[in-house]
Amino acid sequence: MGALAGHTIHKDHIHHGWNNAFQPCLQIAPGETIEFQTVDASSGQLTRESTAADLERLDLARVNPVTGPVHIDGAEPGDALKVTVLSLRPSGWGWTGNIPGFGLLTDQFPHARLHHWNYDPGLAPAMYGPGGRVPLRPFTGTIGVAPAAPGLHSIIPPRNVGGNMDARDIAAGTELYLPIEVPGALFSVGDTHAAQGDGEVCGTAIESPIDVVLQFELVKGARLRMPRYVVPGPVTNHFDRKGYEVTTGIGPDLMQGARVAVSEMVELLASRYGYDPLDAYMLCSVCADLRISSIVDVPNWVVSYYFPRVVLE
Amino acid sequence: MGALAGHTIHKDHIHHGWNNAFQPCLQIAPGETIEFQTVDASSGQLTRESTAADLERLDLARVNPVTGPVHIDGAEPGDALKVTVLSLRPSGWGWTGNIPGFGLLTDQFPHARLHHWNYDPGLAPAMYGPGGRVPLRPFTGTIGVAPAAPGLHSIIPPRNVGGNMDARDIAAGTELYLPIEVPGALFSVGDTHAAQGDGEVCGTAIESPIDVVLQFELVKGARLRMPRYVVPGPVTNHFDRKGYEVTTGIGPDLMQGARVAVSEMVELLASRYGYDPLDAYMLCSVCADLRISSIVDVPNWVVSYYFPRVVLE
Repeated sequence: MGALAGHTIHKDHIHHGWNNAFQPCLQIAPGETIEFQTVDASSGQLTRESTAADLERLDLARVNPVTGPVHIDGAEPGDALKVTVLSLRPSGWGWTGNIPGFGLLTDQFPHARLHHWNYDPGLAPAMYGPGGRVPLRPFTGTIGVAPAAPGLHSIIPPRNVGGNMDARDIAAGTELYLPIEVPGALFSVGDTHAAQGDGEVCGTAIESPIDVVLQFELVKGARLRMPRYVVPGPVTNHFDRKGYEVTTGIGPDLMQGARVAVSEMVELLASRYGYDPLDAYMLCSVCADLRISSIVDVPNWVVSYYFPRVVLE
Repeated sequence: MGALAGHTIHKDHIHHGWNNAFQPCLQIAPGETIEFQTVDASSGQLTRESTAADLERLDLARVNPVTGPVHIDGAEPGDALKVTVLSLRPSGWGWTGNIPGFGLLTDQFPHARLHHWNYDPGLAPAMYGPGGRVPLRPFTGTIGVAPAAPGLHSIIPPRNVGGNMDARDIAAGTELYLPIEVPGALFSVGDTHAAQGDGEVCGTAIESPIDVVLQFELVKGARLRMPRYVVPGPVTNHFDRKGYEVTTGIGPDLMQGARVAVSEMVELLASRYGYDPLDAYMLCSVCADLRISSIVDVPNWVVSYYFPRVVLE
């Protein structure tokens, strides 16, 4: 752990869903730091011994727990909460699952599958047979503040106050700015991932308990509409070295374009490297990036899917 | 020019639109190389002296010319055409325009504007006031083969046989595979850009005449459905060094998410660096990248827009 924190929130302090009536487990002043202990995205329903059958039995009301909420003194609606990711301490274990009914290609891959990762907490590439070596870069999948709308809101969809954004560059060194909608902000974090590609196409990444140290500051009267963040350096150094295999989906709908591009990549990996197609799809989810190459040449757009060759060569 | 070509096609040999009845201007065997001379995306309607008024008078039937077509011996429907980008020779002049009615934020920016670039053909970063330094990386915006469907087809939309893909990594060293639909393939290339970000959000990049040397090979019976390509190395080294400002658009529609993310970035650049919003939008188009951060957390997706800080810091 690279950073010392002024406070620690134990992983017992998780909650499910967003609700601005949840009582804060900690109150801090701007400038303070907190270490958040997290549990995996199944809330511990999956362990190192779990199988695909356990994935099918998941209680979905308990997925994607977040640790918190934290009340930040002086935070008011209209301010922005600046969250700096100081450090992350990976646990060394994680899972990637294909959950029936969930994921970009769920029609094509309706059956449950569970892959366990026992990775080096020092972040050497993680093995994925046959021959796969996945570079790791831990980040916080779900990070956000409570919405103004009363009541309980599902944790699954990301929203204007952040939450389950699964944005893989909210990693060490990143400064995230979140729009605050309630007094005290009520910040929580969880759903930590050891690695993920842009899109998280199968619906899960390397889901892994990772403790994180964050620092909090306020930007008064920022009137931010959406989360934004600042990444301090390169974002694809861990993927880039040997270039990419790129597939495309071209047509009038970005979602369909993404489906086609991912489907083409799964086929490429399966035919060239001997992967079972579902294994290839899950591998894509943890390391390949969805990009919008062009979005103006009416009426067709190009969605490209970048698979880093360093994983397989 | 890094590569010697066995043939040269002069820039007089341009055509407008795709039509498999167009007569080839050259016939080659697989393995051969060709230097293509290109004209800019206005077909020479814009020159170094043009103004925004000239942009408004553009004859749209003559935009996006491509040089060709080339008949490749032995190419049959069902084969793939492998095109290797051996080298590009930039001209040193280019333009970026906001064309009324065209571009991702055309509702927000309805008026014509034209920016001229006089850049170093050796590819030092190109200046864009106030204070902008845009890293250059030339590539082919439109590259494709004739579709099977008879008649004349607009050059604007990209399609399954390639064309106006505006995929910025079809640059030096990239191997592109295109599905062939007619005997001889009938390959053409043009719409060369000195730089572009993923998305090409204002509708134009650094539109610049750039001569390109390409090599052609056939993959018999490949039965490719969409273009795919292999990039030999890093794709964002020219952008990466100082990290990124990132804005997001979160919601149930990817297109709307892209609009929000780009709009937020325009506002950030305008307020922080003193850009006129339309200038900021045009700057984004040549260097910022649209990515799909997550596409599975129903019902909301996250589109992120990455602006490289090296341009302004």
